[in-house]
Amino acid sequence: MINLYFGGGWEQRWTKLAAEEAENVASISCSGHGRAFLDSLGAGIGKPICECNACFKGSDCAEFVPDCVVDADSGDPMFLEPFWLKHAASSAVVVPGWHRMSYEFNDCSLISKELKMHIRKLHATVGNANTDGRYMIFGAGATQLLNAAVHSLSSHDDPSSPSRIVASVPYYPVYREQTQFFESNNYKFSGETSMWKDNMDSLSNYIEFVTSPNNPDGQLKKAVLQGPSVKTIHDLAYFWPHFTPIPAPADEDLMVFTISKLTGHAGSRFGWALIKNEAVYQRMLAYMSLSTHGVPRETQLRVLKLLKVVLEEKGREMFEFGYEAMRNRWKKLSKILSISKRFSLQDLEHQNCSFSKIFRAPSPAFAWLKCEKEEDKNCFEVLKTSNIIGREGSLFGAESRFVRLSLVQSQDDFDLLLQRMETLVVLEEK
Amino acid sequence: MINLYFGGGWEQRWTKLAAEEAENVASISCSGHGRAFLDSLGAGIGKPICECNACFKGSDCAEFVPDCVVDADSGDPMFLEPFWLKHAASSAVVVPGWHRMSYEFNDCSLISKELKMHIRKLHATVGNANTDGRYMIFGAGATQLLNAAVHSLSSHDDPSSPSRIVASVPYYPVYREQTQFFESNNYKFSGETSMWKDNMDSLSNYIEFVTSPNNPDGQLKKAVLQGPSVKTIHDLAYFWPHFTPIPAPADEDLMVFTISKLTGHAGSRFGWALIKNEAVYQRMLAYMSLSTHGVPRETQLRVLKLLKVVLEEKGREMFEFGYEAMRNRWKKLSKILSISKRFSLQDLEHQNCSFSKIFRAPSPAFAWLKCEKEEDKNCFEVLKTSNIIGREGSLFGAESRFVRLSLVQSQDDFDLLLQRMETLVVLEEK
Repeated sequence: MINLYFGGGWEQRWTKLAAEEAENVASISCSGHGRAFLDSLGAGIGKPICECNACFKGSDCAEFVPDCVVDADSGDPMFLEPFWLKHAASSAVVVPGWHRMSYEFNDCSLISKELKMHIRKLHATVGNANTDGRYMIFGAGATQLLNAAVHSLSSHDDPSSPSRIVASVPYYPVYREQTQFFESNNYKFSGETSMWKDNMDSLSNYIEFVTSPNNPDGQLKKAVLQGPSVKTIHDLAYFWPHFTPIPAPADEDLMVFTISKLTGHAGSRFGWALIKNEAVYQRMLAYMSLSTHGVPRETQLRVLKLLKVVLEEKGREMFEFGYEAMRNRWKKLSKILSISKRFSLQDLEHQNCSFSKIFRAPSPAFAWLKCEKEEDKNCFEVLKTSNIIGREGSLFGAESRFVRLSLVQSQDDFDLLLQRMETLVVLEEK
Repeated sequence: MINLYFGGGWEQRWTKLAAEEAENVASISCSGHGRAFLDSLGAGIGKPICECNACFKGSDCAEFVPDCVVDADSGDPMFLEPFWLKHAASSAVVVPGWHRMSYEFNDCSLISKELKMHIRKLHATVGNANTDGRYMIFGAGATQLLNAAVHSLSSHDDPSSPSRIVASVPYYPVYREQTQFFESNNYKFSGETSMWKDNMDSLSNYIEFVTSPNNPDGQLKKAVLQGPSVKTIHDLAYFWPHFTPIPAPADEDLMVFTISKLTGHAGSRFGWALIKNEAVYQRMLAYMSLSTHGVPRETQLRVLKLLKVVLEEKGREMFEFGYEAMRNRWKKLSKILSISKRFSLQDLEHQNCSFSKIFRAPSPAFAWLKCEKEEDKNCFEVLKTSNIIGREGSLFGAESRFVRLSLVQSQDDFDLLLQRMETLVVLEEK
């Protein structure tokens, strides 16, 4: 396995088959409305087939399905896919068959030091989090880290008094779903933060989720509860220049980030937490070890490669690409809804951004849509009759006259969402 | 991104950088006692450094560390690394920057259909599990699947009567550690299976772990408890021809497998479960969704590639390689210990194997060593004085005069273990 050089050239050896296979699959045309992957069905027999975006079909995804349902439910960050297609050469990675087969890295950890260094560098470059004096752990996206944090911060001494898990409405539904699903002795979901503000039960410990910018409404948030019995988990999944101005670096005790909303690689299931308290860090490490025994080594390798691309030119290119996409989508949707009396959007202010050094227009990941008419009590159903699937307000602890619409999906999905919303608004004038 | 062909040749485009980087790193020599990886420290500045096996040091790992500690604790399956080095070309995979960024596959699942098909094909080829009429889910190694199974099989109705989790001594320590760590309302660890055999509490449900072949002692096992209040989880991590004769396909209600002990890719954190009952399957799906939201797409892609290599020539090559390695190690260790009065090994029988169609010598993954002398009550400490770190028998629910020694590690680790054991046996004769 030694490379041979002929007159300055490079003779490719064992990577050739894999490279050829990848380039062949990438060259399959799916009309811009789908994609063939190395593990698409049919790849086993040498013929991967196109996987079409919603509302497109046919062997090359060229056929539009007129009355299809638009999925604006998922926060699937496909708006960044074009950036990675453009940076094909620098973002590809070859995983050799023998790559890091061991359970552990050779410092006995489950974490790549090289990747940890790049994450610290990224936060320093963007200025969105202070990593000084923080421990770092990796997890399977924010998903796993959120429950690891809840488990680690909760009371283990007194089974009669589980920690109360709270969040401000409207809140990301997974906080409630996860806490209820795992049915632990140590914690229980206890509803809306504001209910407890002047009313804290002296026997209980509280764990408050703070989501900034908030999912679904994009507002920057601070913790509500105070005092020695309160711990906070700062979910900063969207605290990146695509989605929000960065007023100053976050400097909290426990902060959770995810690659899903940074580079768009939701399928990679990679996130990290920055933790000030050593005992909490140790408990989260134990959680990771017994839950999944760490994040796959191929994922850590790939994320490292992606972050190297992000860090080129100090992150300007990806964040500008992301911000432009989000700002344009918000502008277009706002414009259509500005003449509506039936639907309204959340108010978002222009703000200074310490990263881009400009006064910035809003660029949220989601529209938090309200049905204003008295009779439109169930906004989800109103949109559904027009073949738009949003996410029901009630899941966020809010009224059913709210719906979250995702703005981070593929261009196809967004274009169709915009078109359907426009039709709805035009109809209301008649 | 269309490939251009010149006179039958293939012009490489966007995969070139990644391929060159991978081949360069692979060509770094670490004297056969270590390895440089793409994400080794120093890779960021273009100079990855060798990561040395235990007991070797220096920039090229050429220097032996005479009094170092031999780690025979971890079941790190590095004995298969040479197989993958030999199959470099067929097992490498290129992950493009845009590979499967979405949260879900386009059938809305978290699971690659192509990979699922290959896993079914593998079980049919090896004949170690009946997959007919079984649902399949993926998880982060057996680790995540074991707890998902416990959660899904446990009682959710009556918090005063959590399901009792039991296992036969000696048992894999994670069963107890995980069950106790997650402190659920629905289940609790209740010790050794045999304690309950004729003594089942009529108000409780039981979940019995059945490990076959058993970790640590390599014995094939059957469920002990019977009746309508008993559910079983069959941990078949080691039920592959490397480690055991395969008498017949396993045909159980809930079976857990992992790639760690099949191909040796423990760092990939990939496993699967085969599940008969649909309701249990649905609960396990929900667990996966809320725990980690599925297994990384790059891991699924890589595992697919690895299984394609395994399936070449119907799996003969890898399983023969694995069996030869394990059988030789067992033979060597047995020979050394055959003259010892101080140490003994578990008895393992020659058996017919339906896969290899021969009457086979034992080839277990672990030695279950017993210190026979009255005064050697703590066998772990006895070995530790000779710089051998095993895993303490007490962790497996057994007496402290037992220790598990791993036989699946790298050749360096095994050679040193053998040498140290030989020294111990020679000393005892004096």
